[in-house]
Amino acid sequence: MEEKCSRKQHEILNAVIEALEEMEYTKLTIEDIAIRAGVGKSTIYRWWKHKSDVVFSAFAYKTESVFDLDFNQSLKFNLQQQLLKLSHALSQGVGRALLVVMAEHRESAGKFFQQYLLPRRELVKKLLQNSIERKEIIADYPFDIMLDSLYAPLHYQIIFFNKIPDEVYISKLVDFILNPILIKNSAE
Amino acid sequence: MEEKCSRKQHEILNAVIEALEEMEYTKLTIEDIAIRAGVGKSTIYRWWKHKSDVVFSAFAYKTESVFDLDFNQSLKFNLQQQLLKLSHALSQGVGRALLVVMAEHRESAGKFFQQYLLPRRELVKKLLQNSIERKEIIADYPFDIMLDSLYAPLHYQIIFFNKIPDEVYISKLVDFILNPILIKNSAE
Repeated sequence: MEEKCSRKQHEILNAVIEALEEMEYTKLTIEDIAIRAGVGKSTIYRWWKHKSDVVFSAFAYKTESVFDLDFNQSLKFNLQQQLLKLSHALSQGVGRALLVVMAEHRESAGKFFQQYLLPRRELVKKLLQNSIERKEIIADYPFDIMLDSLYAPLHYQIIFFNKIPDEVYISKLVDFILNPILIKNSAE
Repeated sequence: MEEKCSRKQHEILNAVIEALEEMEYTKLTIEDIAIRAGVGKSTIYRWWKHKSDVVFSAFAYKTESVFDLDFNQSLKFNLQQQLLKLSHALSQGVGRALLVVMAEHRESAGKFFQQYLLPRRELVKKLLQNSIERKEIIADYPFDIMLDSLYAPLHYQIIFFNKIPDEVYISKLVDFILNPILIKNSAE
C-alpha cells in the first residue's frame, strides 16, 4: 500500500475494480489489468508484486471513506453507517476478490490486515472510548470480542449464506450487540 | 455430497485431506489427488466434477463428529465444545481450503451450505429450543443474529487476524454471547 498514489496508479486500481465487476479474481491476470489501464505489465509490476497485492490496494482505494466516523454522532449511528457501507463494498467485485485473497494468501493477508484494517479497528475503539466518556455506553465490557461479533457476521453472511447484509439485518445486528451496553438515559 | 461413501471414496477424501496439509488448495490438482489415492483421474471425476467439490466432501467427511451435540449437557458446554472442534477443523489444511473454496465458488458454496452447514445450524437451534424448555435461557431473543455473532468470529479470526481461536478466546466468546440470555438459577 503506497501512502500516496500517482494518477497512473489510480488508473490501474480503477481498471482492477472495473475488471472484477466482470470477471472472477481467479481468472483475472496482470495482462487483463494492463490492457484495461492502458499501461505495460512492467508498469504494474513496478508497484505490485502479485495480482493479490493489486486487489488489496484496489480495495483500500475503493473503501477509503467507508471507515470514516463522525464523532459528533451516536455510536449506534456510526456503526450502522459503517457496517452498511462495508457490506456494500464487500458485495462488489473487488470486495468479493478481497475475501478470496484473504483466504488464499495468508502472508499478504496478514500484512493488509495490519496496515489497513487494524488502524480502522483502532479508530472504532476510539469511538467506543468516546462513547464511554459521554456516558452513552458502559465502561466495563469485552470490547474486542464485541467487535468480532459485530463485524464478522458481514463476511459470514456473504461467504456462507451468499447474502449481502442489508439495512434490516445490520440494524438488528447493531441492536443485538449494543443493547446490553447502552446506558438508557443517554441521548441517541 | 454422497449419503453413503464407498471405501474408494474414503481413500480419495483421505488423500485430499493429507495433500492439503502439504500444499495450498490453489496448487492442488485432481492429478495430485489421483496419484496419492492410487486411482485414475476418471475415478475421481465419476463422483466429483471439480476439485472444489472434493474439498467440500473432504471437509464434511473430516468434520462429521464436529457438529455432534449432547442434549444432556448444558448449552454452554455444547457450544464451547463445538466451537473448539470447529476452530480446530478450520485451522487444518482442508479447513483452510474450505474457506478459499467458499469465497471463490459462490454457487457450489451455496449448495454446500444448504446441504451440510444449514442442517447442522438447525440442530443447534433445536438445542436452543431445548434449553428454553428446561429454563436454561430466556425464550425471547434474536437467535438467528445470535448464532451469526457466535460462529462468524471463528472464520473472521482465522481469515482476518490469521489466528486460530483457542480455548480462552472461545470461552470468552461463548460467555459474551450467552451471558445476556442465561437464566441465573439454572443448573449449568
